[in-house]
Amino acid sequence: MADKANIPKGTRDFSPLEMSRRNFIFDRIRRVFRLYGYQNIETPAMENLSTLMGKYGEEGDKLLFKILNSGDFKAKLDPGDLKDLPSARLGTRISEKGLRYDLTVPFARYVVQHRNELSFPFKRYQIQPVWRADRPQRGRYREFFQCDADVIGSTSLLNEFELLQIIDEVFSDLGLKVLIQLNNRKVLAGVAGVIGAPDHMIDITVAIDKLEKIGMEKVLGELEEKGVPAGAVQLLKPILEMQGNTLEKLAFLGDYLQDSETGLNGVAELKKLFTYLEAGALRSEIELDLTLARGLNYYTGSIIEVKSTEAEMGSICGGGRYDDLTGIFGLKEVSGVGISFGADRIYDVMLQLNRFPERDEMDTQLLFVNFGPREEEHILPVLHKLRQRGIAAEIYPDAAKMKKQMSYANSRQIPFVVLVGEKEIEEGLLTLKEMESGEQFRLTPEELLERLPKNISS
Amino acid sequence: MADKANIPKGTRDFSPLEMSRRNFIFDRIRRVFRLYGYQNIETPAMENLSTLMGKYGEEGDKLLFKILNSGDFKAKLDPGDLKDLPSARLGTRISEKGLRYDLTVPFARYVVQHRNELSFPFKRYQIQPVWRADRPQRGRYREFFQCDADVIGSTSLLNEFELLQIIDEVFSDLGLKVLIQLNNRKVLAGVAGVIGAPDHMIDITVAIDKLEKIGMEKVLGELEEKGVPAGAVQLLKPILEMQGNTLEKLAFLGDYLQDSETGLNGVAELKKLFTYLEAGALRSEIELDLTLARGLNYYTGSIIEVKSTEAEMGSICGGGRYDDLTGIFGLKEVSGVGISFGADRIYDVMLQLNRFPERDEMDTQLLFVNFGPREEEHILPVLHKLRQRGIAAEIYPDAAKMKKQMSYANSRQIPFVVLVGEKEIEEGLLTLKEMESGEQFRLTPEELLERLPKNISS
Repeated sequence: MADKANIPKGTRDFSPLEMSRRNFIFDRIRRVFRLYGYQNIETPAMENLSTLMGKYGEEGDKLLFKILNSGDFKAKLDPGDLKDLPSARLGTRISEKGLRYDLTVPFARYVVQHRNELSFPFKRYQIQPVWRADRPQRGRYREFFQCDADVIGSTSLLNEFELLQIIDEVFSDLGLKVLIQLNNRKVLAGVAGVIGAPDHMIDITVAIDKLEKIGMEKVLGELEEKGVPAGAVQLLKPILEMQGNTLEKLAFLGDYLQDSETGLNGVAELKKLFTYLEAGALRSEIELDLTLARGLNYYTGSIIEVKSTEAEMGSICGGGRYDDLTGIFGLKEVSGVGISFGADRIYDVMLQLNRFPERDEMDTQLLFVNFGPREEEHILPVLHKLRQRGIAAEIYPDAAKMKKQMSYANSRQIPFVVLVGEKEIEEGLLTLKEMESGEQFRLTPEELLERLPKNISS
Repeated sequence: MADKANIPKGTRDFSPLEMSRRNFIFDRIRRVFRLYGYQNIETPAMENLSTLMGKYGEEGDKLLFKILNSGDFKAKLDPGDLKDLPSARLGTRISEKGLRYDLTVPFARYVVQHRNELSFPFKRYQIQPVWRADRPQRGRYREFFQCDADVIGSTSLLNEFELLQIIDEVFSDLGLKVLIQLNNRKVLAGVAGVIGAPDHMIDITVAIDKLEKIGMEKVLGELEEKGVPAGAVQLLKPILEMQGNTLEKLAFLGDYLQDSETGLNGVAELKKLFTYLEAGALRSEIELDLTLARGLNYYTGSIIEVKSTEAEMGSICGGGRYDDLTGIFGLKEVSGVGISFGADRIYDVMLQLNRFPERDEMDTQLLFVNFGPREEEHILPVLHKLRQRGIAAEIYPDAAKMKKQMSYANSRQIPFVVLVGEKEIEEGLLTLKEMESGEQFRLTPEELLERLPKNISS
């Protein structure tokens, strides 16, 4: 029966060590979100399928985990349905709920549902798992966490600036060097307009997105394949080849887009954002990257992507502005902008670069070895005092062999062990052993309390 | 389309205020778990249905949320299956996974799956949501959080004592007065044996459990209905009527159970536990309650239940010892003991008694009113310094009307507002307004920094 002890593929258990490392990341992200005034919300794991379906494209619909209706789900079907409907359509007849696929659509639904209770601009953060029925592979899971911060109800670019400050602060707290890439969808739309292929903006952005991976020639080829007129493709080339620093690029774009109002708006937004950034003196590298497009189609303004400059890992944080996210739920013309940290990838980068602290400061500091009931009586009041002072401490629960107890202390990486035998009890003393050095000290309980630093604040 | 903005019945969104109150509870529970050396793990929301089915009784199986298999789930069925199988059986043919129903069974599965990586005794805590397809009603949700601490691999009653200390510490940290009720399943088994109805232990414990609700007469009636011989029911009466303090009760039980080895073991365990408790001086009321049985059938030793003595709310924490939890997954003879805090009920009690702090100490302390780009330039460096010092602060992102900005500060309950106009810029000063008193102070940025207490530790 032991083979039953396993979990669905693509899901994970997190061990104490993994949890302490994951919480190291989450705690730092949460702290910075709060410093910037973002407020925590949580939404249910299950949403109505009607909320989720159609929001992530056809491919996304297939990746939704659907919850089978409870009770006699067959009773509500026509007998023919079971036989005739293909799995996908039958699925939506016997499932009304699905697991959330990201945090953005539930957030949009939340804002619309609670719009009368909220004060706008509404700045919220949310750190919760999401689920996708993707084919599991290395680094891709069916359950993973997203850490999102969004502000909704303000068009000010100060929001973008603050989100970039948050990114900068989080990664420098984590000790990671990153490159922040910026672009603006209005510039991309402007480009599509100016070259005379406005309907192909998505094709163009997707193609630009691939520039780094597949090279210029193939990108141009793909564009023609997608039906972008050859003339338009030629007009696009200067953009793909554009060089220079940010100011030079923005000047070039101002020229290139002079006939596109949208395009010029995008350039103006980028200019303003870079003015904030110049004054703000972030520690991370920041660049304007016209080849940055991001896949999600709801972005309409600024787009942001973050990469580690020390490890190969793709995007570890990203986001952008969306002008009509809540429109799908009936609340029109509310602009929002947000970012999402990819906790799993950040975890992998931290691990690869060995940036996690060696020990979790809240882990047990001290183990009392258990020699039996008489010693327990002597120990328990001291143990209680330690905990009252915020020191994480344990007593081995059984009077097991010394070797077993010491091996427990070792495997838990507990730095101090306390030994109390008959002699110590008589003298009212304790023996403190430093596990790393092997040094031992005979102390009174008061001396022990003074010696140990408090590790859990109350 | 706005009517689409809703969530499945029995589920909840948590607003920023609710989240800060929920986190107030979770943080305190987590802190105490860690002080006692319990380590955090997390398991996936989805488990294989084979892990979950059959662990919670027939009723429990019905309450499992099943995840519809992805892709063409019909392809794997015989055509007859769809037509002929009842919903419950068809459900398990088209679903391989389910949402976890509690944290105990996933924990047992975790211990067995990872047994070679763990050092025993293994003390773990876990704070995660669980899902049950129960009929939603006031105070009963389809998604709710459990906060569990269990130790596995030790039979020592010191574990029970420490779990009771944890309960005592958590509720006194939360400012709640509670009554902790204790019993032991071995005593109950002994009683069933002594009265000559050993096969009816479950019936007897269920009946005893109802004593408070339905009264002696009905309990006796129910027992006879369930086939407990009339003589046995008569022999049981002294137990139901037993009075006195803990020592007196334990003495009575020692007598009553003299022919039952199991029963006497139970009495000895209770005696030992009460010896620990006497020395431990907990702040909560603690009593031996023979009518305490708890529904879950996997308990085999100590059982624990906690109630508020200030609010009507049923059990807000409970637990016990189970001698063979991992046996169902093939790892035999590993004893465990654990407790579970019911966060939702604790939340309701705290709310009802008005015990939550008025303000979350990590909420925004200060809002800079936005008068436009020139003022922004003056403000942004000060704002950045505040945040660097761990003070949560915001600038209103748009140069909106003063009234709108002040109303934002009010609705967010931000205690301080900073105003910077032309004159302040010239003089290098800021005006700090205390929202509650309405008092205003003109300060240099340095004076402002000194005046505000740091609210988020780094």
